[in-house]
Order: sequence, then C-alpha cells, then structure tokens
Amino acid sequence: MNIEIIAVGTELLSPRFTDTNSLYLIERLGDIGLPVARRTIVGDWGEGLEASLRRAMDFADWILVGGGLGPTGDDRTREAAASALGRGLVFRPDIQAAIEERFRRRERPMAEPNRRQAWIVEGAEVLPNGAGTAPGQWIESGGKILVLLPGPPHELKTVFESSVLPRLAARGRRHASRAVIRTTGLTESEVEALIAELYPESGDCGLTVLASPGRVDLHVSASGEKAGEAEVRLNNLAGKLRDRLGSAVYGGQDDELESVVVRLLREAGATLATAESCTGGLVAHRLTNVPGSSRVFLGGYVAYGNAAKARDLGVDPSIIEAEGAVSEAAAAAMAFGAKRRMGADWALALTGIAGPDGGSESKPVGLVHIALAGPDGMTAERRVFPGLRETVKFLSSQRALDMLRRRLSGIA
Amino acid sequence: MNIEIIAVGTELLSPRFTDTNSLYLIERLGDIGLPVARRTIVGDWGEGLEASLRRAMDFADWILVGGGLGPTGDDRTREAAASALGRGLVFRPDIQAAIEERFRRRERPMAEPNRRQAWIVEGAEVLPNGAGTAPGQWIESGGKILVLLPGPPHELKTVFESSVLPRLAARGRRHASRAVIRTTGLTESEVEALIAELYPESGDCGLTVLASPGRVDLHVSASGEKAGEAEVRLNNLAGKLRDRLGSAVYGGQDDELESVVVRLLREAGATLATAESCTGGLVAHRLTNVPGSSRVFLGGYVAYGNAAKARDLGVDPSIIEAEGAVSEAAAAAMAFGAKRRMGADWALALTGIAGPDGGSESKPVGLVHIALAGPDGMTAERRVFPGLRETVKFLSSQRALDMLRRRLSGIA
Repeated sequence: MNIEIIAVGTELLSPRFTDTNSLYLIERLGDIGLPVARRTIVGDWGEGLEASLRRAMDFADWILVGGGLGPTGDDRTREAAASALGRGLVFRPDIQAAIEERFRRRERPMAEPNRRQAWIVEGAEVLPNGAGTAPGQWIESGGKILVLLPGPPHELKTVFESSVLPRLAARGRRHASRAVIRTTGLTESEVEALIAELYPESGDCGLTVLASPGRVDLHVSASGEKAGEAEVRLNNLAGKLRDRLGSAVYGGQDDELESVVVRLLREAGATLATAESCTGGLVAHRLTNVPGSSRVFLGGYVAYGNAAKARDLGVDPSIIEAEGAVSEAAAAAMAFGAKRRMGADWALALTGIAGPDGGSESKPVGLVHIALAGPDGMTAERRVFPGLRETVKFLSSQRALDMLRRRLSGIA
Repeated sequence: MNIEIIAVGTELLSPRFTDTNSLYLIERLGDIGLPVARRTIVGDWGEGLEASLRRAMDFADWILVGGGLGPTGDDRTREAAASALGRGLVFRPDIQAAIEERFRRRERPMAEPNRRQAWIVEGAEVLPNGAGTAPGQWIESGGKILVLLPGPPHELKTVFESSVLPRLAARGRRHASRAVIRTTGLTESEVEALIAELYPESGDCGLTVLASPGRVDLHVSASGEKAGEAEVRLNNLAGKLRDRLGSAVYGGQDDELESVVVRLLREAGATLATAESCTGGLVAHRLTNVPGSSRVFLGGYVAYGNAAKARDLGVDPSIIEAEGAVSEAAAAAMAFGAKRRMGADWALALTGIAGPDGGSESKPVGLVHIALAGPDGMTAERRVFPGLRETVKFLSSQRALDMLRRRLSGIA
C-alpha cells in the first residue's frame, strides 16, 4: 500500500522554509507503522497542483494533502481536487454558519473571502476544524482515500489528530520497530558485499545503507499487524547484520565514534593524550565534544611545525631529517612523546599531508601515518585518504579513534 | 516553463533527515531567476521512483534528480530513468576505468559493486564527478531535459556547479548576480535594525538574512534579461549594506572567519600559536582547515587539565589556586605561555566551562575567558555564551578568531 503526502504552498519551494507539516505527518504515520512512499511539494499557482493530485490518485492508495484550503484566491486545493476527481463542488450553508459563528465569538464580522471555505468536493465528508475556519475533507474514490487538511500547522494537527489518525490507524493498524547499526572502516561497497546474502532474508523488513565519509550506517525497520511480531523480525535481521559486519560495528543510533571511545576509556579507567600534526586539533576537538571527556582526556599537542614536534614532544630532529615529518618513525616518536609528557596510558599521534599542496610521488596528498602508543606497546598504520583537505583530516581522525576503539575492545 | 526536483532516498522520507540537496538546488536555480514548480521526495524501493520520473516527464520541462546513483542494490535511479524513458542502459568501460583509477590512487582495489556505476542511460551525456565515483547524466528527450546527479551532497554540488548550472543558465537566458555578506559579532535583530532603512531601496533585488550560531549572513540577488544591469543594481545595494554593517563584515561568499584570519596573518608576515582548554582544539582545527595555514600557524596546546596548563604553558599554579582555571588571569598566562614557548607573534588562549556540568553561581556554564597576546600587548574578554556544549565551543572559537581579525585589521 502506498501513502503520499502533498504539501501545497509556493513558499515551501524556497530554500528557507521547512515543510514541517509533512515531517509531522510522516512521524505520526510512522508511529502506527505506516511508511510514506512519496512526498510532493507543489506551489499554489500553475497546473502543478492538479497534475500532482491526478498522479497521486494513480500511484497512491492514501493521499494526504496539506494546505490550499484558505480563503484567498491562491488557495485552490478544493477546486484542484474536484477537478482531478471529475467531481463538482458543493456549497454547504452549515459550514458557512459555523465560520460565521467563529467570527461572532471573536466579535468580528465574517470576511467575505471566507465564504469560499464553505465549498466542499462533492461526496466529501467534512472533518471539523476546532482551530480555524477551513474544515478538512475526507473523500473516498475507487477504493482510495484522499484527505484534504488545512495548511496552518496547528490546524492541520488538530484535524489530523481528531479525525484522520484514528481512522487510518483502524484501517491499517501496524506495529513498527526500528534500529540503526553504525560501522566504520568499511566502504559502502564492502558493507554491501558482506550483507548481500541477507537481502533475500530481509523479507518485510526495510533495510537502507547510508554512507557518509568514514562511516556506513544501516537503517533497519519492520512493521507488522501484531505487537511484538515486528520486533522479533527486526531483532533477528539486525542480529544477523551485526554478525556479518563484526568488529566494524561501533554503535547504534546516536552513537558517535568519539563518545564510544570516551566510554571505553572510562570503563577501563584509562587516560589519553593526543599529538596531532595534519589533523590540527580535530581529534582533540572531537573527544572534547563528549560531555565528561575531561575525566579521561588529559590534553593534546597541535605540533604543526617541526620545531614544535621536537620541543614539545621530544621528537629527535634526526628522525625528521632522515625519514621526514610524515613518516612512521615521526608518528611513533610523537605518540611516545605525548604519552610520556602527559603521563597518559594511551596516546594517539597523526602526521600526514592534508593537501591541497605538499604532496610528492612517494608521499602523496592524503598520506597519513597514525601511531597509537598504549600500556602494552605501539601500533602504527600508513593510510592514503581521498578527498579535499577537510575530508582527509576527518578520515584521519576517524581512523585514529577507531584504532583506539579496537585496542580498547580487544579486537585484533 | 516548469522545473521539478526529485530527491531519491528512503531515508529522506523519515522525519529526521533534511533533504539538503533539494534546498541547495532551489537556492542555486533561484540565483539565476528560475523558480522550482515541484519537489518530489521518493524512496529507493517500490514503484514510486519510476512512477515519479514518468509523471515528471509529463509535467516538467527540466527535471533534476538527486540520489540513487550509488553502487548498491538500492541505488536504482539509472534503471528507473531508462525504464521511464523507454531506453536501455549502456556499459561504459571508460567510466569503469575512471572509477578503478580513483581506487588505485587510494591504494585499494575497486569493489565489485562499483561496476554498476559505469552504466548510463542510452543517449545520456556523462557529467564528470570530480568528488566521487558516480558520474552525473544529462539526458534530452522530446524537448525536455532530465539530469541525474549523485546523492552525496558534496558530489551533487561538484557536478551541478561544474556541468549543469552553466548550461541551464545559458538556456534560461537570465542574467543573475548574487552576493553574500558575512558578519559576526551581531545578532540577527541587530543586523535587521541596522539595515531596516534599506529595505524600501532594495527594489527588485532579493535580500535574505540568514542567522546561524556566531554568524549572520546576508544574501543579495538580482536578475534581469540584460547582462550587466543586474550587477549594477546588486553592487549598489550590497555596497550600502556593507557600509551599514561596518566592521562586523568579515567577508563574502566562501569566506570563513578562519580563512580571513590566516590571510591577514600572511599579509602581516606574522605567526600564531593557540592554547585551548574549553574549546579542546577547535580553534587549531579551524585554522588548520585553511590550505597554507602552516605558514602562519605554528601549533597549539590543548591544555585540558591543570597539570598540562602548568607544565606546557608555564601557568603559575598559584594563579589557578587563587583565581581558578577559568579566569582572566589563567587565560592571560596561557596566552603568554603559548606565545613565548612557540616563539609566535600572536597567541590566542581560551578557558571556560563548556558544560553541561561544571557550572556554578559565579562561573556559569557558557562562561569563557579569551586572551589575545600580541606584539603590542594583551587583550582579554569575558563572555557567557548560550547553548549546549558544542555551541559554546563554537561561539568561543568564533569570538577568539574575531578578536584576532579585529586586531590585525586595526579595528578599535
């Protein structure tokens, strides 16, 4: 079954306005396990509204339209709906009387344009609007349901909550469940390859793979007619996905990699220091975004120049002379220096070429050496990250934090 | 003429995700005087995508589709577009070679699913994607234009700016001009009050005030049928706005405060060091986001604990004992320490309470002391910033950078 939401209003086609009505409807429908298949946003003028209603009647089973029921000339949802359905409009004196009564309570005469709001699509059921003058309309046609809702958000909510949601829930009552699995260290394609076999098993569950730099998230959802039944299918699929993805999984909804690392450090009663060259403080910034990080993060060095690397971190200038500032030896010396100087249990060091300049054949832009010094020795990695300067910085910080997460979690 | 934007992605039909791609496209089309008639948001699965492409070919003259060009099984825009147009798909070995080359530069093999991205709609022109693996596609059919764009925002922007916008502007025969004025240090209301008198004068120009934490931007636009005429009106209004806003203006489109500071330091031949407590490396991170910042930024300290403040920055423990780590005296000592130790001309130091815990009656959450040490002495400020931890960190870094910008620009 397909549900479509149509938001009507030229102002919604500007980059500054948010169509909050549709987001609200999506959320409330999601609460009863009903996903929305399409959202359409169309202006008040031109042929777009009627064309959208016609196509919605082809595509969707339930159509919710928000807006365009006001009193003015650019409110044309009534006319467009009648036309798209091949029906007429009917004047309802009882609606006009209700509007007049509303004005009377406010001790004002009804403005003439409000008369327009007393017209309804032939055969429509009127949905009372306790918060404004335009009633909603419930129209059934050929097994499909078309609901017209007023556009002002509090009016739309009033009509939807009182007259629409209960009926839709009764017709389609579904129980819904949802999970997010966050991974790092794998590309979208690698994730896809690992979980490909599970697609046939995913059955009625929704499964979306969402990639952003340094992270691939899986969104899993399930809905069903019986309470608990959706949860069982969801947990079953989510469990299999986590098994396949293994140690690449670092958390669920709302888990940032830095908050996972801070939690692991706190659980281990361990402290951390950083020494950053190419990331320029980003690792420290991310760690200190986590409330309570001051209990485990002692501090860091942004050793951008070679002099700072020698003076603050005790990196032997002959290492930089022989191997260069971007080298495994320099990264290791930086990590040991930060660990010793801060008196920390762990230290992360990064040195690399963030670009756009400074690359060479043997040391290209994006090359980063990461070293992790810990209570039981050192790990170092050489990586080449793609992208522009800020992406290289972010991917470097992501990998550094993940190296620490893996060590703290005992992952080989 | 009707323009429609179609955003593809099931995640965009959740109440949590914002379809920023469509907002961006609406903004850029608006810049060249082209309004969007309809926005559609449709999921990856089911018949919705193809149905939406079919209805768009009926309704719109130009159709921009964002998303669904990725490598995985739920990326189906290529297939749906071919099907809606009644065309086939063609495998392009040259695209596969370009994707393989991209992986080679990262020293990784191309994952098998990425092969899917080498298929294009029969007759489509390939639009190179400098930022990712999926090229865009430009398809003309029956006098209509269908453009397929990759979904990751930076990729969509890259392809749109380089290959799509110039062509659409040429066909739309509008000359448009646009300016952005960026300010910091004023609230949105203060900006409104300063420019209120200019609203009647703005005439046919578009003027939008856009506030984000620590920054208020003004977007000015003008369009017309004759080249040059729009520019004249735009420059006239933008000049008056800049006059009104005075020293709060720090740059234009694409100018970040940190890039302005790096440019001013380079012009002055001066160097900078940082000492951060509450901002945890954010000031250094922002500075090192600027290409070429290594010539002026010597490095920094993330002195999160008091021991680090004493050891690395030479802050006298008796100052912290008497005044507290969050005090003007501590900030000043940190700035002097970083300046001396790094041998820099300037040093910025920040110490404060980012929250959510750690506040008191006299030192509330959001309190920050910022000190700027320079060749001709020290400036210090006490501020209390609103918001959550990350906002307090950002606003602190913004004010610190602006203090330096003002000193370097000779603004009182």
